[in-house]
Amino acid sequence: MYYAVIFTSDLRGSDPEYAEMAQRMLALASDRPGFLGFETARGKDGPGISVSYWRDLSAIAAWRRDSEHSVAQRLGREKWYSWYRVRVARVEREYEWTSDAAAPDTGNAWQSVR
Amino acid sequence: MYYAVIFTSDLRGSDPEYAEMAQRMLALASDRPGFLGFETARGKDGPGISVSYWRDLSAIAAWRRDSEHSVAQRLGREKWYSWYRVRVARVEREYEWTSDAAAPDTGNAWQSVR
Repeated sequence: MYYAVIFTSDLRGSDPEYAEMAQRMLALASDRPGFLGFETARGKDGPGISVSYWRDLSAIAAWRRDSEHSVAQRLGREKWYSWYRVRVARVEREYEWTSDAAAPDTGNAWQSVR
Repeated sequence: MYYAVIFTSDLRGSDPEYAEMAQRMLALASDRPGFLGFETARGKDGPGISVSYWRDLSAIAAWRRDSEHSVAQRLGREKWYSWYRVRVARVEREYEWTSDAAAPDTGNAWQSVR
């Protein structure tokens, strides 16, 4: 059992300072206890989606209150985002597939998340 | 309370047939009972992330078993994806912010998802 924080956002425009800050925040988050992983995607148009994975809710709460992260959140609202949405969700099942011939074909079965 | 299906994937290459299929699947899913919404992003590099939102687990299970969707899943494995991961997660809290001056500033408070 672990948690996903789904962060969906739209940017007002492109700003290299934003990319720098996003990199910095990922580096900071990765060092926090309870951080499990991170995935991000943003196309030319439309919203970006970043998902971070955490051991438990207290790890998420601690990262949310982190002072450098708080400053970044405020800057995000002032300068970069036109909107964002944050969802905290408990991962209950997962399933992975890879075309790598070396990996066993796990078929179509859900794995319960322990 | 509702559910998110986080679908992370990497494509072997670009194929217009894939984009067409993705569009078709979104249209089909949108018509399913219990479908609540969809967000997707894919940058030039790295994985794409699509998140679909559903009322409950049975809606997710029914969509997963849909016959046209099953064919698309098989084609995805045969032709388009180098890997993918599916996570089913229960959304427990959410928070939204918009720079729109007309919207009330809800501050920094979590909304519990009912």
